[in-house]
Amino acid sequence: MKVLVIGGSGTIGAAVADALRGGGHEVVTAGRGSGDLRVDITSPDSIRQLYGQAGRVDAVVSCAGGGAWKPLDQLSDGDFEHSLHYKLMGQVNLVRSGLEQVADGGSITLTSGVLSQEPMPGSSAISLVNAGLEGFARAAALEAPRGVRVNVVSPPWVAETLQAMGMDPSGGMPAVQVARAYVDAVQGAHNGQTLDARKYA
Amino acid sequence: MKVLVIGGSGTIGAAVADALRGGGHEVVTAGRGSGDLRVDITSPDSIRQLYGQAGRVDAVVSCAGGGAWKPLDQLSDGDFEHSLHYKLMGQVNLVRSGLEQVADGGSITLTSGVLSQEPMPGSSAISLVNAGLEGFARAAALEAPRGVRVNVVSPPWVAETLQAMGMDPSGGMPAVQVARAYVDAVQGAHNGQTLDARKYA
Repeated sequence: MKVLVIGGSGTIGAAVADALRGGGHEVVTAGRGSGDLRVDITSPDSIRQLYGQAGRVDAVVSCAGGGAWKPLDQLSDGDFEHSLHYKLMGQVNLVRSGLEQVADGGSITLTSGVLSQEPMPGSSAISLVNAGLEGFARAAALEAPRGVRVNVVSPPWVAETLQAMGMDPSGGMPAVQVARAYVDAVQGAHNGQTLDARKYA
Repeated sequence: MKVLVIGGSGTIGAAVADALRGGGHEVVTAGRGSGDLRVDITSPDSIRQLYGQAGRVDAVVSCAGGGAWKPLDQLSDGDFEHSLHYKLMGQVNLVRSGLEQVADGGSITLTSGVLSQEPMPGSSAISLVNAGLEGFARAAALEAPRGVRVNVVSPPWVAETLQAMGMDPSGGMPAVQVARAYVDAVQGAHNGQTLDARKYA
């Protein structure tokens, strides 16, 4: 399969790209500042350009987008707007524009995160975004054309990310294990599902 | 208790206001075009004005906000923006501004809907919004001050709404029954929960 991995230079995205290549797939990576192609997922135009450049693909995997992590009483209107338009609508728009670009029977896989269901103080905006993505994917999957599947992978804290933050990586899951959930979303038959990456440890 | 019911003239909101009054509570209603007070929940300024006018309240119940119901390939950027800023951020902002206004040990209750977990074709934007609200409430509840509780009620299709749409009302739940979930959210000890109104039939 030809797979477009957006955010393919990030901790998870790079592990997903490696795992897919290891499985014999052709991988095209895209990102804001690196990768085979450039995309700013906050811009619907940039997303459309990306799909035009990538051409027909069998699968799209998004490991892109972020949100604001702050105490609730410090989250500004701008923090919510940024979170909504980056990780949430950025990935929603990857689906909206991608459904026509993906080959028959292909798939689009987005990234939410464990904070959707298991929040922490500081996660209000991110929990909103992650849960919203999961709700969107459940619904969008019902209307995807030509057998295209839409799923979300929900990763836990990733060991490499914790280490980069100066925290104990033993509380996280290695990215190479998280990547297995994405490979299953691409190769399997899931549709409208939220795949808990912890089950792939 | 003094309870501010936003959207208190709608099908669910009016039933909630009635049920709370029947339980001996003082109810102040607010809405765009009717009620004791006026509010446009798409405007953070209007929300702050509302809370200033309502004064200290023991509970806030929101039955306000809507979203776009359309086939996924007909949902425009504007439809998503409207949905995000009306039912989703409108209610999120009722919490953000309300946490300081609600009395110690009080509560804020929002409205999502069954499409969060049980989507239908046409519900992509609304499923996103409803799921996002549930994720937000789970997280915000962790940071609410002074024992204030934050919950969401998820109503199914309401019989009166179906009837108004010319559909068979027997597939819906009467608003008077749906209202019981809100009363439980106000009077009970739930926090960070999504209350499935169907359990109150």
